[in-house]
Amino acid sequence: MILLDGKTLSAQIKSEIAREVKKDFLDAGKPAPHLAAVLVGEDPASQTYVTNKEKSCKEVGFTSSVYRYPANFSEKNLLEVVDFLNNDPDVDGFIVQLPLPKHISEQKIIERINPLKDVDGFHPVNVGRMMLNLPSFLPATPFGIMTMLERYKIETEGKHVVVLGRSNIVGTPISLMLSRKAKNANATVSLCHSLTPDIKKFTLDADILIVAMGKMGFVSADMVKKGAVIIDVGIHRVTAKDTKSGYRLKGDVLFDEVSKKCSAITPVPGGVGLMTIVSLLLNTLKASKKEIK
Amino acid sequence: MILLDGKTLSAQIKSEIAREVKKDFLDAGKPAPHLAAVLVGEDPASQTYVTNKEKSCKEVGFTSSVYRYPANFSEKNLLEVVDFLNNDPDVDGFIVQLPLPKHISEQKIIERINPLKDVDGFHPVNVGRMMLNLPSFLPATPFGIMTMLERYKIETEGKHVVVLGRSNIVGTPISLMLSRKAKNANATVSLCHSLTPDIKKFTLDADILIVAMGKMGFVSADMVKKGAVIIDVGIHRVTAKDTKSGYRLKGDVLFDEVSKKCSAITPVPGGVGLMTIVSLLLNTLKASKKEIK
Repeated sequence: MILLDGKTLSAQIKSEIAREVKKDFLDAGKPAPHLAAVLVGEDPASQTYVTNKEKSCKEVGFTSSVYRYPANFSEKNLLEVVDFLNNDPDVDGFIVQLPLPKHISEQKIIERINPLKDVDGFHPVNVGRMMLNLPSFLPATPFGIMTMLERYKIETEGKHVVVLGRSNIVGTPISLMLSRKAKNANATVSLCHSLTPDIKKFTLDADILIVAMGKMGFVSADMVKKGAVIIDVGIHRVTAKDTKSGYRLKGDVLFDEVSKKCSAITPVPGGVGLMTIVSLLLNTLKASKKEIK
Repeated sequence: MILLDGKTLSAQIKSEIAREVKKDFLDAGKPAPHLAAVLVGEDPASQTYVTNKEKSCKEVGFTSSVYRYPANFSEKNLLEVVDFLNNDPDVDGFIVQLPLPKHISEQKIIERINPLKDVDGFHPVNVGRMMLNLPSFLPATPFGIMTMLERYKIETEGKHVVVLGRSNIVGTPISLMLSRKAKNANATVSLCHSLTPDIKKFTLDADILIVAMGKMGFVSADMVKKGAVIIDVGIHRVTAKDTKSGYRLKGDVLFDEVSKKCSAITPVPGGVGLMTIVSLLLNTLKASKKEIK
């Protein structure tokens, strides 16, 4: 059984990015790629995520900036911040951290972002171009999964990929990316969700099973084909008095039992989650090189 | 066995549209919805298609116009035509008939169309909004399939839909539309294509089988589950000396044998094909009512 180790892989890709930043940007007299993040309110998970982004930017030599606003910041003002960043030539790409406070329309904000700076890949233009197999910014988590499969040389062509969960940011886009006519894709994809009556019938047939249901421990060993590849996108906090943080992270897959039956699996933590930030760095690099037109 | 009769259904929907045009537009003193088509070159199938559009527009009381240009028309000039139609307040929606001559980039032309007038639903913004389950212009053929399933009250929720073919204009969008969290959707969808090793395994499990492979007679009775619903998107011309036209139309499905085993099936001709133009009319109506923002 191969552990699909997001920690090692993300460190490796970060060092590749750092080398490229040094050689093609700093040594060439060009400013480092610049990723900005906009954070509204005090959501602790969002705070952590943005802090991790800043840390990762530092590691690879990117410039990073964070625009922080209180939870009662108005939609109108946030749209102005987006316009400002759209027009700031020093910013290559930026993200507006979700979720936003309820009085702000996330969709309105996302659609205001210049698609050429939309390194989260959430703007409809990028989503559409992804479906059409045109160059675009790919959403971070599915892009991270694609990178992981590619780097671990897991064959996808002709395989049956079963995706559990049809969210706009993970399940649906990964099912599109893997079924496209492209290198490291060309899979037959079945997209299952909460209204699939017999999920086990699908999971038992999966050569590659991607689990993004948001249900802790949803996938047990009896649901998995022997030798399958398991990608666990779930992330859940469980109280654990014996840890320093007071909690432990768990995935959508029962790792201990499923890992004995499959050929490869991502751990939680240390799997897909770490690839998400790497995707964001790769998208920012792409934006700074003006590769998407 | 129910024949999913595109002829009767499209006539019925057209008469509904005609009533609405009379009541909400003409009788209300407003100009009729206006669909324009741009045709470059002499491709016979395109000529026929555009002629059918004009005829359908007349039937429902739409204004229609066709802009015809020779095969050597330049890309630059075609972009200017698109800009003109984008800005013409009298035109509610328009399509640029594909395929275009090889010296013109179809993607460039499509991306130049104002998404609010893109009644073919091919612009990346509309494709992306479709995936994100936001209001958009849906591409005509998959929209026609959705309309047909809905009008014939074919339950999709919880069903296993197998789609054969992953084109940008049929297979991939219909797989997205049917798997979305929405009324008349909520299906579990498997998207198969030329690189699926064992297509029969999937088709035999399909409650609803949508065939858009572009391979005449690809689906035989032994590939179909008893009682399945069959949607045949294929359309092929076969020489036939005993017909007036000199040819006969055939689908991707062997109708004679499959119709004995399934619970419902679209004929070719007279099935999905006729729904495509109806979709275009519905999109134009939507555009004229400024329903998409």
